[in-house]
Amino acid sequence: MASVPESTLAVSLGDPAGIGPEVIAKCWDNRAEFNLPPFVAIGEGRSLAAVWDGPIEVVDDPHQAEFAFDHALPLIQVGSAETDLPGHPSLAGAHCSLDSLELAVGLARSGSAIGVVTGPVSKEQLYEIGFQHPGQTEFVAERCGISPSNVVMMLAAPTLRTVPVTTHLPLAAVQQELTTALIEARARATLRGLQRNFGIPEPRLAISGLNPHAGEGGQLGREEIEIIQPAIAALAAEGWRVTGPHPADTMFHTRARANYDAALCMYHDQALIPIKALHFEDAVNVTLGLPIVRTAPDHGTAFDIAGQDRADPRPMAAAIRMAAECAVLRAETV
Amino acid sequence: MASVPESTLAVSLGDPAGIGPEVIAKCWDNRAEFNLPPFVAIGEGRSLAAVWDGPIEVVDDPHQAEFAFDHALPLIQVGSAETDLPGHPSLAGAHCSLDSLELAVGLARSGSAIGVVTGPVSKEQLYEIGFQHPGQTEFVAERCGISPSNVVMMLAAPTLRTVPVTTHLPLAAVQQELTTALIEARARATLRGLQRNFGIPEPRLAISGLNPHAGEGGQLGREEIEIIQPAIAALAAEGWRVTGPHPADTMFHTRARANYDAALCMYHDQALIPIKALHFEDAVNVTLGLPIVRTAPDHGTAFDIAGQDRADPRPMAAAIRMAAECAVLRAETV
Repeated sequence: MASVPESTLAVSLGDPAGIGPEVIAKCWDNRAEFNLPPFVAIGEGRSLAAVWDGPIEVVDDPHQAEFAFDHALPLIQVGSAETDLPGHPSLAGAHCSLDSLELAVGLARSGSAIGVVTGPVSKEQLYEIGFQHPGQTEFVAERCGISPSNVVMMLAAPTLRTVPVTTHLPLAAVQQELTTALIEARARATLRGLQRNFGIPEPRLAISGLNPHAGEGGQLGREEIEIIQPAIAALAAEGWRVTGPHPADTMFHTRARANYDAALCMYHDQALIPIKALHFEDAVNVTLGLPIVRTAPDHGTAFDIAGQDRADPRPMAAAIRMAAECAVLRAETV
Repeated sequence: MASVPESTLAVSLGDPAGIGPEVIAKCWDNRAEFNLPPFVAIGEGRSLAAVWDGPIEVVDDPHQAEFAFDHALPLIQVGSAETDLPGHPSLAGAHCSLDSLELAVGLARSGSAIGVVTGPVSKEQLYEIGFQHPGQTEFVAERCGISPSNVVMMLAAPTLRTVPVTTHLPLAAVQQELTTALIEARARATLRGLQRNFGIPEPRLAISGLNPHAGEGGQLGREEIEIIQPAIAALAAEGWRVTGPHPADTMFHTRARANYDAALCMYHDQALIPIKALHFEDAVNVTLGLPIVRTAPDHGTAFDIAGQDRADPRPMAAAIRMAAECAVLRAETV
């Protein structure tokens, strides 16, 4: 019997007391409308039943899930914690969210699942049970044997993709962190990710300035001249299609966006403001630089609205859809 | 004979070699489609004729212009410089742009015009003829007897208004410039401007944080706690409707924008990125805190495309339309 390529995504429920279970269940409910591929939920089944009365089918692996997906939400049961009340996180729930993440990554690493989509977790809760990573991304990188410094967080949406060079730093610390080497490393990881995950053979990268008007020739700051331009020159010398430094305020209108496949931004809000202004409902967090496909919705556990049937499933649906698209494109380019 | 309220705007052509004359002429061409009120162009007539073959009627004042507007672009002739070639600025042209600005402001100050719309000038050229101000805004403020520190630059568009607290500074200098007193002063000027120019009796102001996630409770920077929150508390104690500090990346999506009338942002790109991403064609620069109405399109002279019939008149049309709207609202609230 010839082996059939797997086609199911592993979706971790995230914290059982957050909105992860609700939005994942709603994605299954609306799988036709959202145009979603088969996926298997991984986590504590009672957290689904607490917020949803649809059909759940417990399965052993993603392959079984593919056949169940048509008539029920397939679930790989993880943990047996007392049911968390939605909106009331517990340490047992944190353990469950970590075990679910671990299993989801393992399934993708082994090839049983074509990629991983991670539901939102509570870092505060995870830290209390001894979690040592800044976030899920770094955990996934470590489990894949990749240094976290070599993976890149991209925010991707239908009309814009952005990557921040520096991430969760006070604004005043950005200047010290920003180096030519760091910009080059992020740029290369982004360009390779565009090739590998998005199937773009010759990707175009627009690189922003740090200062207003990209420094206006040095009058409003010299980082463009001293740090960013050398990175652009080095990347161009390697044959990459890079432009910049561009004034950040004129990079993100419709006509400008047509000129590049991704924008590399110098700090968190420079990358996140435009994508969330334009694509709040369908921006997806994609981790580049991993041997597996990994996406996530760009929202948190939202404990304050969990269990109230108010959570919007569209960001999770966009994350699931994009993971499947990236998995197909990666399979084609391998 | 009873006096009839004036209803004409004064529109300075800006630098005669820039795209100002072209976009203003195109605005007259499309005055019906763009729904524009009567306006009078102020500047060098030959700079119009060099890029446009429509009818021009030279007038003495805005009152005459109102009657001419129907069948010709009314012009108050300023200067008699040798005709600048489009795209080739000269010092004579710089003198002309300054004289035009001065006259336009004077007409608004005297009540002959209901407001001023300023075409783009070249600061480099103006500095060469002894201009001492950072830009047109400060010049207008001084001619109105207002300290430039008390006027505020707002970017206004149909679904978003933003005001930067700090403007043309290197990013690394923002932290030092940002004080509680400055935030309060900008906030008050913005709130009064929303009342006066936009007819909003109880304006709602959303104030951003400086750092990612608005500092995340002090973990990603302390400016929110030490500088921004005290300003918000002081403004709230005065009865103003202010909220924040908000994470800047989640302030600008459709649903969030419905919660406020303007967003006060801590630095240039935080205010300019979202408005230009969402409203590149119709964002208008409005100066608040003046005794007159003053707007401008948010683009420069664009010497590189001047005279090629490529300039987009929509930003200028938006500036003219908004000036008229503000003038009507101010007349009603006086």
